[in-house]
Amino acid sequence: MALIVQKFGGTSVGSIERIEQVADKVRKFREAGDDLVVVLSAMSGETNRLIDLAKQINDQPDPRELDVIVSTGEQVTIALLAMALIKRGVPAVSYTGNQVRILTDNSHNKARILQIDDHKIRSDLKAGRVVVVAGFQGVDENGNITTLGRGGSDTTGVALAAALKADECQIYTDVDGVYTTDPRVVPQAQRLEKITFEEMLEMASLGSKVLQIRSVEFAGKYNVPLRVLHSFKEGPGTLITIDEEESMEQPIISGIAFNRDEAKLTIRGVPDTPGVAFKILGPISAANIEVDMIVQNVAHDNTTDFTFTVHRNEYEKALSVLENTAKEIGAREVIGDTKIAKVSIVGVGMRSHAGVASRMFESLAKESINIQMISTSEIKVSVVIEEKYLELAVRALHTAFELDAPRKGE
Amino acid sequence: MALIVQKFGGTSVGSIERIEQVADKVRKFREAGDDLVVVLSAMSGETNRLIDLAKQINDQPDPRELDVIVSTGEQVTIALLAMALIKRGVPAVSYTGNQVRILTDNSHNKARILQIDDHKIRSDLKAGRVVVVAGFQGVDENGNITTLGRGGSDTTGVALAAALKADECQIYTDVDGVYTTDPRVVPQAQRLEKITFEEMLEMASLGSKVLQIRSVEFAGKYNVPLRVLHSFKEGPGTLITIDEEESMEQPIISGIAFNRDEAKLTIRGVPDTPGVAFKILGPISAANIEVDMIVQNVAHDNTTDFTFTVHRNEYEKALSVLENTAKEIGAREVIGDTKIAKVSIVGVGMRSHAGVASRMFESLAKESINIQMISTSEIKVSVVIEEKYLELAVRALHTAFELDAPRKGE
Repeated sequence: MALIVQKFGGTSVGSIERIEQVADKVRKFREAGDDLVVVLSAMSGETNRLIDLAKQINDQPDPRELDVIVSTGEQVTIALLAMALIKRGVPAVSYTGNQVRILTDNSHNKARILQIDDHKIRSDLKAGRVVVVAGFQGVDENGNITTLGRGGSDTTGVALAAALKADECQIYTDVDGVYTTDPRVVPQAQRLEKITFEEMLEMASLGSKVLQIRSVEFAGKYNVPLRVLHSFKEGPGTLITIDEEESMEQPIISGIAFNRDEAKLTIRGVPDTPGVAFKILGPISAANIEVDMIVQNVAHDNTTDFTFTVHRNEYEKALSVLENTAKEIGAREVIGDTKIAKVSIVGVGMRSHAGVASRMFESLAKESINIQMISTSEIKVSVVIEEKYLELAVRALHTAFELDAPRKGE
Repeated sequence: MALIVQKFGGTSVGSIERIEQVADKVRKFREAGDDLVVVLSAMSGETNRLIDLAKQINDQPDPRELDVIVSTGEQVTIALLAMALIKRGVPAVSYTGNQVRILTDNSHNKARILQIDDHKIRSDLKAGRVVVVAGFQGVDENGNITTLGRGGSDTTGVALAAALKADECQIYTDVDGVYTTDPRVVPQAQRLEKITFEEMLEMASLGSKVLQIRSVEFAGKYNVPLRVLHSFKEGPGTLITIDEEESMEQPIISGIAFNRDEAKLTIRGVPDTPGVAFKILGPISAANIEVDMIVQNVAHDNTTDFTFTVHRNEYEKALSVLENTAKEIGAREVIGDTKIAKVSIVGVGMRSHAGVASRMFESLAKESINIQMISTSEIKVSVVIEEKYLELAVRALHTAFELDAPRKGE
């Protein structure tokens, strides 16, 4: 008999019919003998409706009061699911974040979980009840309602699994697992049976938005086995876990991630003096613009070029900040490009394999795709290319790294 | 500087515009120097929407879980009002029933308030904040969310006023006070400046649905001065208070209430033996049918007739129960009538005035209105008449008891 935490997102509980389907699924697990804690999001669209109500009062609504409103979304779904389970003869009880009690810090709208009281949940599980918990919300030490920020229900699921030392945290979504790359781009993409936390982090942050990145970090930190599954289709999904078996048979790379949401900015002819990177990125950061890749090459003629990428939505803003900076520090010019794409190969296997990057560059060269920027980490290599080559690049790499064929061990 | 509890109902907070108007009103009071606790209902229609969601899962939803859902309605409005106040530069904070903490028993969907912790509210008031509290909800000693039943926000307001020893509890509604009778029936109806708790109870239970009856009882018990006011019009409203000055100038009756929602049932030729009333009403009560008036006259020929009224919606059900009973106890026949109306005169003044009832009967006789049933209490006389005479009867009585003219002392 296992203890399983199951998390269903907004689409999975988006209507009464869907909630009834989730109840059927939960009942099946319960009848198989598992102890179950179910974490729910608000019905899809509901959180936006509530935020919109608040914004009709004030574009910048008071953060404490916003959490009071937004937290009602999950409060409705947990009670609906508990009712649906009770109707099926499955004893169940719902808890808000406050009732559990999921203690957070007091950063309204983006709170972090500090501690979970497992007392009530354990006693309900012992009494044979399914416990349905509101995701995305908690309470600070003064009893103020807090929320974890958008998508935070995944984090609630993982945190509960960690606190309860659950055997598995199952995240139900609208995909049946994590794939070697986006199947819409590469039809031969394969569902991965397993992936490590580190790989998943690189895949998620690079645009394979299956799981919320914070929840993966959290799961890795507390070593909670995470499984991504489809809400309404049968199948084993993908297990995200620690890297247990670094065997010969492990593929060199696990997947190919990509992202077309970025834009690139370059400031050229920057005097090559200490502190210049800060002078450039300081004002960007002060303007609340997030930077992804940063590349600076060695200087020549005492000047250097400095390039970074930002979200495409923030390109104009970043450009105007950077133009000011260029004047101040005496740089030659600022240029930018929004028609770029980032492609990354990810895999813990590359740690022990030399030549992974060169194999990547080689297969792009074969397709005559020019590489504009390169950055690397221990388990990934990312390149920026012209956007129109994105699909071609992903397909070429998918084949070059032997991801097309059904993989060994699967 | 007074401490005032203000309660706004669902219509008063039914849209963002209305909530902004309430915020303007609250700000004015605050700027005048009063300490304010504001109690809110859910937006009109929202509670029904939430109940409907629950009923889509189960016609008889689990009571605990229903409270979890339904309580979100007020949780949204309190935060919206707090935001609107903060936007206006008025420091404000919202609290759910659980956050206050309003402790209730565990009768879900119809809980009763046991105790209110005034600690947080007092410290907020001291800090100059307007405190916005969710009406209609509380929490039991195990932390389960409870609701007080439909319309319970009035009760929350009165209970808070009692706990805080507030100077006044103001109930904002869609009428500008309590009238001598329904102005739609008698255009000369007058707004009462004052009315006693007892009179208000009789008026409310008889169909002048301005205030929730439980809140009036509660206010009377704890002697909380209640004031009924219009949410969006200026005016002093009607003060409901204890009967301080039983002066000569006090009118004999304060108002005329009426009700067309009832139906009458008579069981005839009942053997006149002890216990027969219970044999008749026992099965009615067991069928969860509420009975209003009950009349039994003295027996003749060892049989008696027994008449009572029920809500018109329950007439058919009551009729079938009563026909079974008639067979069992050997009664002659069962007859009924749904085309009836009840008219009542209410006033503490009648205690010290003889002949009030006969004056009532006289003025009805003058209009040739036949009286079918009569029942009396210390401060009211009710009669049942044929429904079509209702307006005529109310107007005749309004004139007979001198309620048409502006009254002395106003």
